[in-house]
Amino acid sequence: MSNPPIAKSPSACIGVFDSGVGGLTVLNQLYQQLPNESIIYFGDTARVPYGTRSPAEILQFGREIISWMLQQQAKMVIMACNTSSAIVLDIVQAEFPMPIVGTIAPGAIAATKLGRRIGVIATPATAASNAYKRAILAVDPSVEVWQVGCPEFVPLIEQNRIYDPYTTEVAKGYLEPLLERNIDTLVYGCTHYPHLAPILRSLLPPTVQLLDPAFAVVETAGDWLKFLGLANPQPSLPTRFCVSGCPQDFAQSARQWLNCIPSVEKVCLTP
Amino acid sequence: MSNPPIAKSPSACIGVFDSGVGGLTVLNQLYQQLPNESIIYFGDTARVPYGTRSPAEILQFGREIISWMLQQQAKMVIMACNTSSAIVLDIVQAEFPMPIVGTIAPGAIAATKLGRRIGVIATPATAASNAYKRAILAVDPSVEVWQVGCPEFVPLIEQNRIYDPYTTEVAKGYLEPLLERNIDTLVYGCTHYPHLAPILRSLLPPTVQLLDPAFAVVETAGDWLKFLGLANPQPSLPTRFCVSGCPQDFAQSARQWLNCIPSVEKVCLTP
Repeated sequence: MSNPPIAKSPSACIGVFDSGVGGLTVLNQLYQQLPNESIIYFGDTARVPYGTRSPAEILQFGREIISWMLQQQAKMVIMACNTSSAIVLDIVQAEFPMPIVGTIAPGAIAATKLGRRIGVIATPATAASNAYKRAILAVDPSVEVWQVGCPEFVPLIEQNRIYDPYTTEVAKGYLEPLLERNIDTLVYGCTHYPHLAPILRSLLPPTVQLLDPAFAVVETAGDWLKFLGLANPQPSLPTRFCVSGCPQDFAQSARQWLNCIPSVEKVCLTP
Repeated sequence: MSNPPIAKSPSACIGVFDSGVGGLTVLNQLYQQLPNESIIYFGDTARVPYGTRSPAEILQFGREIISWMLQQQAKMVIMACNTSSAIVLDIVQAEFPMPIVGTIAPGAIAATKLGRRIGVIATPATAASNAYKRAILAVDPSVEVWQVGCPEFVPLIEQNRIYDPYTTEVAKGYLEPLLERNIDTLVYGCTHYPHLAPILRSLLPPTVQLLDPAFAVVETAGDWLKFLGLANPQPSLPTRFCVSGCPQDFAQSARQWLNCIPSVEKVCLTP
């Protein structure tokens, strides 16, 4: 695979991608932990949801997006999509010699610091990959882990139907097997799911802790920037938002998590 | 986890580790593709075989070895152990912000370029992890993949019993289910196994291609060095061989693949 040279300037941007608005939860952590970094955010909204795609499709999408990020001179890529991270992170890491940070391992390590009876909600593809369970149990085999695939969550979030009573009904069904197991910790195994926090919180006993891996993911990204000497000492440029689908829909949906209506470009990954 | 700072000098060494003599197959590729690089080779011979260890043990061993490699000022680590790569690569990559190259993804990508009916022989832990099958099918879902766990191979190779008739009998048994599937390609899913090439070749039809992922692993390592600007422009120092077990045993066993009797140090990972 022939790729453009990789940007190795501290002022270069970090590329962040997700299938849709999910990665905004990671973006907000970047604003807090690494405020000097300039970001290109790509939401693959023309092809969302990823969670019911085949591994081969998820790999193809990842390759296309990372190649495009390289064309945008990104110095690092954050795969802010658990489905991609669970299934193809190691493959794209072998194909693209640049720092690519995924979500599963940082999330799994954080989960073992928090809980003993851990529930993971995730897309069907992430749950089927067993990636969280494998990683959590490798880090601490004395905990217990249960995973639930939640096919309806991403479409509902992308459609901005978080406060629709139907979403609460769906969430009840997904949480039921985890509540039966008396979990003490619930891991958001998909970057979209923290957007559902008010709904999930209302359905869970107060003793259950909610874990968003985004904090740990951005910590890992920060460690890499330090190692590479690529942390930006200058204040950042405004985030550039790009999507493969409808820019207006993304702007409207993203608005509530960004406290502004972002300017969004439609881009074509394979010109 | 508190680690020493990471060496970022082109003249720093590359750390290569395996449970025993398996990683020597990767070391030979390093000599061919990256002859300027200085290497520290660590064989965890006190704890070999890894393939029947639990994921938690494999993670603990990996952490200890990578921490020690950092103390030796390594600029990069090659996890020349498929069992570790299959089960804990992503976790140690999140814990240690340095380039850590594993074997599975480079091997899987190479396999899809070679065959359509792919057999993978591996340790029980690697086979159980499904890592090769997942990666190969993500790269090319149109191929077929069968995996066989081969618990006896690593101990036999470490005991230098390659030409023992018993080893041929054992190999026959492991290959039988793959031959029934008419494989066209056999992947060495363990860095020890290329040492068995004469035995395996004698048992396989000449149409079956043997794939050693070591070439692709070292290619990936070279890409990383280029990206990081850390390729060594100077001729290398002699390789330093270190083991956790008996240095004499390792030297004796390694001799036939190195064409010399190496000088081997016994080291203690956790002083």
